[in-house]
Amino acid sequence: MSNISGLKEECGVFGIYDLDNNQSVGRTIYYGLSALQHRGQEACGIAVSDTYGPKGNIEYHKGLGLVNEVFSKETLEKLDGNIGVGHVRYSTSGGGGIENTQPIVLKYVKGTLAFVHNGNLVNANRLRNQLEWGGAIFHSDVDSEVFAYHIARERLHTDCIEEAVKNASKDVKGAYALVVMSPRKLIGVRDPYGLKPLCLGKRDNAYILASESCAINAVGGEVIRDIEPGEMVTITPEGIFSDMSLATTKKARCVFEYIYFARADSKIDNVSVYDARISAGKALARSYPVEADLVVGVPESGIIAAKGYAEESGIPFGLAFYKNSYIGRTFIKPDQSEREIGVKMKLSVLESAVKGKRIVMVDDSIVRGTTSANIIKMLKAAGAVEVHVRISSPPFLHPCYFGTDVPSNEQLIAHKHTPEEICKIIGADSLGYLKIEDLSQMANGLEVCHACFTGDYPMDITGEINSSEEK
Amino acid sequence: MSNISGLKEECGVFGIYDLDNNQSVGRTIYYGLSALQHRGQEACGIAVSDTYGPKGNIEYHKGLGLVNEVFSKETLEKLDGNIGVGHVRYSTSGGGGIENTQPIVLKYVKGTLAFVHNGNLVNANRLRNQLEWGGAIFHSDVDSEVFAYHIARERLHTDCIEEAVKNASKDVKGAYALVVMSPRKLIGVRDPYGLKPLCLGKRDNAYILASESCAINAVGGEVIRDIEPGEMVTITPEGIFSDMSLATTKKARCVFEYIYFARADSKIDNVSVYDARISAGKALARSYPVEADLVVGVPESGIIAAKGYAEESGIPFGLAFYKNSYIGRTFIKPDQSEREIGVKMKLSVLESAVKGKRIVMVDDSIVRGTTSANIIKMLKAAGAVEVHVRISSPPFLHPCYFGTDVPSNEQLIAHKHTPEEICKIIGADSLGYLKIEDLSQMANGLEVCHACFTGDYPMDITGEINSSEEK
Amino acid sequence: MSNISGLKEECGVFGIYDLDNNQSVGRTIYYGLSALQHRGQEACGIAVSDTYGPKGNIEYHKGLGLVNEVFSKETLEKLDGNIGVGHVRYSTSGGGGIENTQPIVLKYVKGTLAFVHNGNLVNANRLRNQLEWGGAIFHSDVDSEVFAYHIARERLHTDCIEEAVKNASKDVKGAYALVVMSPRKLIGVRDPYGLKPLCLGKRDNAYILASESCAINAVGGEVIRDIEPGEMVTITPEGIFSDMSLATTKKARCVFEYIYFARADSKIDNVSVYDARISAGKALARSYPVEADLVVGVPESGIIAAKGYAEESGIPFGLAFYKNSYIGRTFIKPDQSEREIGVKMKLSVLESAVKGKRIVMVDDSIVRGTTSANIIKMLKAAGAVEVHVRISSPPFLHPCYFGTDVPSNEQLIAHKHTPEEICKIIGADSLGYLKIEDLSQMANGLEVCHACFTGDYPMDITGEINSSEEK
Amino acid sequence: MSNISGLKEECGVFGIYDLDNNQSVGRTIYYGLSALQHRGQEACGIAVSDTYGPKGNIEYHKGLGLVNEVFSKETLEKLDGNIGVGHVRYSTSGGGGIENTQPIVLKYVKGTLAFVHNGNLVNANRLRNQLEWGGAIFHSDVDSEVFAYHIARERLHTDCIEEAVKNASKDVKGAYALVVMSPRKLIGVRDPYGLKPLCLGKRDNAYILASESCAINAVGGEVIRDIEPGEMVTITPEGIFSDMSLATTKKARCVFEYIYFARADSKIDNVSVYDARISAGKALARSYPVEADLVVGVPESGIIAAKGYAEESGIPFGLAFYKNSYIGRTFIKPDQSEREIGVKMKLSVLESAVKGKRIVMVDDSIVRGTTSANIIKMLKAAGAVEVHVRISSPPFLHPCYFGTDVPSNEQLIAHKHTPEEICKIIGADSLGYLKIEDLSQMANGLEVCHACFTGDYPMDITGEINSSEEK
Repeated sequence: MSNISGLKEECGVFGIYDLDNNQSVGRTIYYGLSALQHRGQEACGIAVSDTYGPKGNIEYHKGLGLVNEVFSKETLEKLDGNIGVGHVRYSTSGGGGIENTQPIVLKYVKGTLAFVHNGNLVNANRLRNQLEWGGAIFHSDVDSEVFAYHIARERLHTDCIEEAVKNASKDVKGAYALVVMSPRKLIGVRDPYGLKPLCLGKRDNAYILASESCAINAVGGEVIRDIEPGEMVTITPEGIFSDMSLATTKKARCVFEYIYFARADSKIDNVSVYDARISAGKALARSYPVEADLVVGVPESGIIAAKGYAEESGIPFGLAFYKNSYIGRTFIKPDQSEREIGVKMKLSVLESAVKGKRIVMVDDSIVRGTTSANIIKMLKAAGAVEVHVRISSPPFLHPCYFGTDVPSNEQLIAHKHTPEEICKIIGADSLGYLKIEDLSQMANGLEVCHACFTGDYPMDITGEINSSEEK
Repeated sequence: MSNISGLKEECGVFGIYDLDNNQSVGRTIYYGLSALQHRGQEACGIAVSDTYGPKGNIEYHKGLGLVNEVFSKETLEKLDGNIGVGHVRYSTSGGGGIENTQPIVLKYVKGTLAFVHNGNLVNANRLRNQLEWGGAIFHSDVDSEVFAYHIARERLHTDCIEEAVKNASKDVKGAYALVVMSPRKLIGVRDPYGLKPLCLGKRDNAYILASESCAINAVGGEVIRDIEPGEMVTITPEGIFSDMSLATTKKARCVFEYIYFARADSKIDNVSVYDARISAGKALARSYPVEADLVVGVPESGIIAAKGYAEESGIPFGLAFYKNSYIGRTFIKPDQSEREIGVKMKLSVLESAVKGKRIVMVDDSIVRGTTSANIIKMLKAAGAVEVHVRISSPPFLHPCYFGTDVPSNEQLIAHKHTPEEICKIIGADSLGYLKIEDLSQMANGLEVCHACFTGDYPMDITGEINSSEEK
Repeated sequence: MSNISGLKEECGVFGIYDLDNNQSVGRTIYYGLSALQHRGQEACGIAVSDTYGPKGNIEYHKGLGLVNEVFSKETLEKLDGNIGVGHVRYSTSGGGGIENTQPIVLKYVKGTLAFVHNGNLVNANRLRNQLEWGGAIFHSDVDSEVFAYHIARERLHTDCIEEAVKNASKDVKGAYALVVMSPRKLIGVRDPYGLKPLCLGKRDNAYILASESCAINAVGGEVIRDIEPGEMVTITPEGIFSDMSLATTKKARCVFEYIYFARADSKIDNVSVYDARISAGKALARSYPVEADLVVGVPESGIIAAKGYAEESGIPFGLAFYKNSYIGRTFIKPDQSEREIGVKMKLSVLESAVKGKRIVMVDDSIVRGTTSANIIKMLKAAGAVEVHVRISSPPFLHPCYFGTDVPSNEQLIAHKHTPEEICKIIGADSLGYLKIEDLSQMANGLEVCHACFTGDYPMDITGEINSSEEK
Repeated sequence: MSNISGLKEECGVFGIYDLDNNQSVGRTIYYGLSALQHRGQEACGIAVSDTYGPKGNIEYHKGLGLVNEVFSKETLEKLDGNIGVGHVRYSTSGGGGIENTQPIVLKYVKGTLAFVHNGNLVNANRLRNQLEWGGAIFHSDVDSEVFAYHIARERLHTDCIEEAVKNASKDVKGAYALVVMSPRKLIGVRDPYGLKPLCLGKRDNAYILASESCAINAVGGEVIRDIEPGEMVTITPEGIFSDMSLATTKKARCVFEYIYFARADSKIDNVSVYDARISAGKALARSYPVEADLVVGVPESGIIAAKGYAEESGIPFGLAFYKNSYIGRTFIKPDQSEREIGVKMKLSVLESAVKGKRIVMVDDSIVRGTTSANIIKMLKAAGAVEVHVRISSPPFLHPCYFGTDVPSNEQLIAHKHTPEEICKIIGADSLGYLKIEDLSQMANGLEVCHACFTGDYPMDITGEINSSEEK
C-alpha cells in the first residue's frame, strides 16, 4: 500500500518505559507500531525487558511483513516487560533479509541493549572500518548495527549508557532518530540537524518516544513535546533528563516528512503535517493559478494539498479517485501482457466526478513520470477536459544521503527534462512545482533540509558517501 | 478494513469466458476478484476449465483470507483454462469454515458445474428439505449449495444447462446474482427483483460477468450493460443469449448497494454509485440545513455524500480523518483494559482541520451508535465546536432477509430510540437521517428495496425465514 | 518413509464411541491414527460428535500431511465429543487434493453422518452412474464418496442407519473396511471376502474399531476380536449388535497385509503378522536353501522374514543396513545429476557387518527391480562376496483391483522377465520367490486373496474395472 | 525421533569446497546434513559462497526444524556457490531460539567468515568476559559465538585465517570439531583430545569435512581419513595443508560416539561404529552370561550390541519391538491422564516374538530408569518369562562438560542406586553394565574419554565450568 507515485517510505521507531511494574508494554508497542506502519512495511520487531526483573534479560521477536502479520497473540504474550522498543522497517529489496531487521539486541560486558534507528549514516563505512580495525565483528551490512556497536564500545570507557550513546553519536554523521533500551533506562536521541523526527509522550506513569505524534495518540497517550535536534533524553525512574551537547545552530529537518512521509494527523516539531500540506497547496494556487472546475488530490498525500489549493483558489475541492486498499505486499503484479491492468488495480477514476470538468490534480511528487502519465490518461478517458498538474514539492534533482529512497538520477524525470517537457510527457495541460522559497513557510518557518531539490546539503558529505542502505 | 460504522459487507461474483483458446483467465479472475474485495474479505476461490480441453475437467482453489493471501503465483499458474468463475465471500463468524467457500464445484451425471452466488434465499430451508427427501445429500449448511444442487437436479430432466438454471431459479425465492460455469457455457442470472447487481462486459474476445462494473474496468474490459432483474444470459461460442422468463414487473434493487456496499467507481443499473451518494448528500442538505464551517465524511462511504451535502449547502467540503488502512484481518484487537485505543487505531482526527470549527459529519448509517459516539467525542476533543450528524440512509428498523448482515433488533439503536434520543446518546448537536422519499431519487428513479427501513418486503416472506446464512 | 522397494501403502480407519459422557475422543483418535500412520501418509482427518449434545452436530478437521503435521493442539481441542472417526490416507499423486480427504461428512434429511473407508470398489463407476441418474451430485472423484452417498440414499427408505449401511453394502462390489458415525451409533463393516482388515476393541467404557489391532493397543485398549468378513457391527449405548447377512462362504483376505502392509505387532484375523512373516521366511529357507554366512532383511518388512529364514536354515540372522528415518514427505529428491546419492540417502550398508560374507537378503517384493539392483550393488561394494535374494511373496503378475497400488504391467519386472532373468538383471547370485502354495500357510491356513500372483480374483470383475482410485 | 532411553544427541557439521567452478554445493550440503540429522533435530543451517565471485559474499539460510522442513527447493536454489558449510543442531529447550542457530556468519575488517561447531567449551564464560572487556559485543548466549568471535579477533593480528583459527583454538578449552569458511579457504579443526569427531573426504574435485563418514558416503564421496586430534586442515585451491601444532600426547575421544551418538555405518578414527557396538555386546556376554532364549536390542543403538551379545553367547538374535518412526517433533504428547499411552506410541512389543521366552534385552544406557521399567513391563505383559538387561555402557556417575546432555545428578538413577537396586526398580531379572575396562577395547584400543563414568576428566576443569550450553 505504498504511495501511488513511487517514492518510498522509511522507518519508524517506538519506545516506552512504564515506571509502574506493569507487564503490558508489548501490546502497547504493537499498537504504536501499527500507527507507524505507513513508515515501513517490510519488517518489524519488538524487544522488551522488565526493569523489576533480572537485569538485562531481553525478550524479542522480529519478522518480515506487517505488524499484524509478524505478531500473533502468542508471540505478543511472550513479550512481557515494562520497558521496550519497536521498529517498522522499509528497505530496498536487496537488503530485506531477516538479519537486517530491528531492534538490534546486543550482549556485552556491561549487559544488554536493544537499539532501534530511523535514518541513514553518511560515514557508516568509515566508522565501520575503524571499528573493525579495533576488533568489531558484524552480523549484517546495515549502518544501524555500526551505530549500535559503537555505542556498546563506548560504554566500555564510560560509567553510564547515556554517556556512551552521546559519545557514539558525536562520531556519527548523518540522519538519525534512535531509541536505546538499557536494562534500566530508555534513551532517545535525534541528530543535530533534526533530519528525522522524534517526540515524547506520556500515558499514566509511562513515557513514550515515537517517530510521530500519531503513535502516541493512537495508544491513548498525550504528546509532551518534540525531542529537539541534537537532544538526548534519558528516561529513568528518577526522572527524565535532557542533554543538548550534540546540538548545533544549524537545523535541517527533512521537508519530505511534511510533504509525504508523515501521517496527516501528526505534528512534527510542533508543526501540523495537515497544515503544512494545506500551506503547500495554497502556495501552489498562488504560484500557478488556473481556471478550473474541480481540485482533486492523488491519494494519499496529494489530497490535503489539493484542499489547500481549493481554499486559496476558490475552486471546489472534490474527489476523483477510488484507491483499492486491499492490494497488499503479496499481491501478484500484472505482467507485461497485462500492462493495462497495472495502475488500475490500485487506483480508479470516479468518472461521474470528473466528466466534462477542468481538473486541477495535486500530487506530492513526480518520480519517473509514468504513473502521472497513466493517471492523467485515465482522467481524460473518463471525460476530464483539462488536467492541470500541481506538485506539492520542487523537482528532485539531487540524491538524498539521509534515508529517503529516491531513484537514481537516470530514472528521475526531472533530472533529464524541464518542467515544460515533463508537462508534455505526462500529457498534462499545465504543470507547476512548489517553489523552493515556499518550503520553509510550509514548515511554518522552521529550517528544513532541501538538499534533494537544491544540492545544498546540511553537512559536508564529501568522501563519505556509502552505499546508502536504508533503515 | 471493514467499514468503521459496523455494517457488514456481502459477496462478489466474477465469471469470464474467453472464446479464444487463451489460457489466462485464472489471472484475470484474480484481478477481477481483487477489484471486488470490498464485497467480502473472509474467503475467496477460483475455478477454471478449458472448453478446448477434455469436457468437464475443472481446476479450482479456495481458501480463507484476502485474494492476495489465498492465491500464490504457484496456485494461480495451475488455474489454466479459458473459462472460469470466482467468488469473494463475507460471512458471519460462525459460518466461516472452508467447506462454505465458493465456487461450489459439482460432479453429476451430466458432467460438472461450478457455481458462485451473491445473495440470500428466503426459502432455502424448505427447498433443502424437499431436495433431501428426494435424496439430496449436502456437504455444508449454506443456501448456495442448495441452489447449486437444485440446478444439477433439474439438469437431469432437461436437455441443456440453461434450462436447468432457469427451472431451479423459478423455485428459489430471495436475492441472487449468480454465475454458473458448465463445460461449454457461462450463465449469469439475476433474481426477478434485481436485489443483487450483475453486469456484463467484454475484453477482446472474452465476455465477463461481474457483481460490479468496477471489476470489468479493472481488468481492462468495457462494460456492455447490466443484466436485467429476472434475466438469464448464456455465453457460448455461438453468441450471447438472453432469457427474460423469470422477470416480473416489480423491481426492488437493494438501495444499500448505492449507500454503502458498492465501490464509488461502479455503476449499478446504469446509475453511478458516486452520483447516488452525491444525491443523498444533497437531499440531506435540503432536509436538514445547518450553519457550519466544514462538511466532512466518515471514511469510506460517508465521504462522497459529504461532498454532496457541501455542494448543496455551499459549506466547504473537507477532510477530518486519517484512516489506517494497515489494520488487517489478523490485527489483535485492543481488549477491555485498552478500550481507549479502540476506534483510534482505525480512525484518527486531523485536529488542524477541525479545531474551532462547526462540523457537519456525514456517515452512511448508525448501527449500534457506539462508534458514532466515539468519533464525535474524538472530534470535540480535537476542538470541533459543534458536530452535526447527517446519515445518508433512513434508520434501520426491520431485518433484511436478502443478504445484508444487519445486527438483530436489540442491538439496533434506531429500534429502541427516536432520532432525538439517538442524537443525545451519540453526543451530536443535531442529527438528520435521509428521508425514505429521497431513496428512489438517489437511485435516479429506479425502483429500490427499502424493506429494512419500512418493513415493506418486495416478496411474501411469511413462513419462509431461515437462519439467513450469508454468502 | 515409504517402503524401500516401491510398493505403496493403503489407508487406515479408526472409530471410537465412549459411552461415558467423556469429551476426549479427539485425542484418542489422534493417537490411534498415529499408530496407523504406516497405512497412509498423504492426508488425514478426524470427525467427532457428542451423543449427549445436539443431534447431528459434527466437528471435523482434515488436511494433507502426517497426523502430527495436520493437527495442532488448537485444532485437536476443538474436536470435543464422545464419538468419532478418523482416517489416514495414501493416494496416488494425481488424486491427492484436499477434496478427497476423509472423513466424508454428509448432511441430509435424516441428519448427518461421517464416513471413513479403506479399500477399493470395483463397481464404483457403475454405481456412481446409477446414483447420478437418480439425482446424485458429487464433490469428488473418489469411490468412497459414492459409497457414503449410497448409504445416505438408502437411509431415506429405511428406519435406521444400520439398515441403510447394510443395503448399500449389498450393492457394492470390492474391498472395504468402513466405519460410519451417525448421531447416536458407530457402525463398522467389513466386505464379504474380508479383503481389508477391521477389528474391535475396548477401553474402559469406550468401544473402538480400527484397521489394525496395533492402534487399539497403542491407545491403551484391549482387542476383543476381529470383525468377520461380511459382518456389520453396530455400537450403541444399548450394546453391540452383529449382523452377518452380508457374509458369503468364500473368504479372500489380502495376503499383502501379512507380507507388507500391516505392522508386525498387529494381529489380523487372529494371525500374528510377525508369525506370518517368520513363516514366509521359513518357507523360503526350505524352498531355496543356500550356503551362506548371514541372513539380513531389507527394512522394514523384509527383516522379520529374514529372521524366519535364519531360524529354519541355521544361518545367523543379522543386520546389514542403516535406514535414515528423517527423510520425510518434503525431502528434496536428488535429481538426475545426483543419481548416485539416490537410494543411499534412505539406506546405507553396514560395511563391517557384510564384508567378506555370503549374504542371504530377504525383501518383501521386487517391483521394478531398480532398487533391488542398487542395494545389491551397495552390498557388493561393501565387500559382500555373494548376495542371494529371497522374496517373501510370489512375483506380481496381475493388477490388483482392491486397493493395492501395484504399478502397471509395463513397469513390473516380473511381467516381462523370468525369475532367472530377474536374478541377472538385479545382479544377485541366486533368487527365490515365495511359492504360491506357501501363501495360505503363512496366514495360518486362512483363505487369502492371491489374485495379484495368480489372476484368480475372488469375485467376478469382468466389465467392472474403473480407474481404481485409491482410498 | 530421539532415542527411546532419554539420552540426548548433539550437533553435526559439514563443509565442502568444490575446486571446480561448480554452483551445486548447496544441495550437497543439504544431503550431507540429512545424513547427519541423527546428531541434531532442533535447527539447521547452510552458508555458501562463491570463491570465483566477489570476495566475501555469503548466502545463508537457517531455521528451526529438520533439514527437510527448513529448506525448500526455493531456499536451496538461492544457495549458489562452490564452497559452503552446514550445521544440524540439538539444543536444550531453553536455548532453542533462532539467534542460536548456526552457521554463524560474521563480517569484519578482514572480510567474512562462516563458522559451524560441534562441542562445548569449558572456558567459554571466561573467554567471553575477556573478549567483552576488549570490546566484544555478542548477539547470543552460545559459546560457539565466543569461539567464532575470537577467531575473527585473532585475524586482526595475523596475516591469514588459518593462523587466526589456530591462535583462537589455543585459548579455547573443551571439545570442538569445527569448520570455518573464509572467502577462499575451508578450514577444519579438531580439539587436541579428539573429543568430537571430524573426517575428510573427496568427491571428484571437491573436498569435504564432516562429523561422520556416513555423510561423506551419502553424498557419493570417498572418505580420505579422519582429522587427527589437535589437527587443523586448510583446504585451498593450492592443496590441503595440515598443521598439528595444537596436538598433545593425551587423547580422549568421546566413547559415547561409539555407544550411541554416531550412525552404525560410520567409522570414527578408523574404528567402525558397528564393530564397536558388536564388541561391547560381546564383552557383556562374557561378563554377564545368562541362560536365555532370545537376545534383543532396544532401538536403535541397542540392536547392534544385542547382535554382539548373541554372537558371543550363542543365544539366537532377534527382534522384540516395533518403533513408530512417524512420531515427529510436533507430535502432541499424551498428558498425565493418558500416561499409559506414553511409551507405547513410540515403541510396541512384538508379542509373538517374545511370548514364553527368556529375553536378554540390550540397551545403550539407563538414564532415569522409567523408560526401561516401562519397556520391561511391556515385555512381561507380552509373555516374556524373564528379562535380563544388559547395558552397553558403564553407569553414568559424573557430569559431562564436553557436550553430552546428561541429566543432572538428581535425575540419574545410577547416582542414587547400586546396580542391584536399579535391577529391582526397573523390574529386570538381572542387570549388567559394560565394565570400564572394556571401553578401550570397544574403540579398538584407542584412548577414549570415560569421565562420565569415572570422573577422570581429560583436562583440568576446576573453576571453568560454565552453564554448558549445547551446540
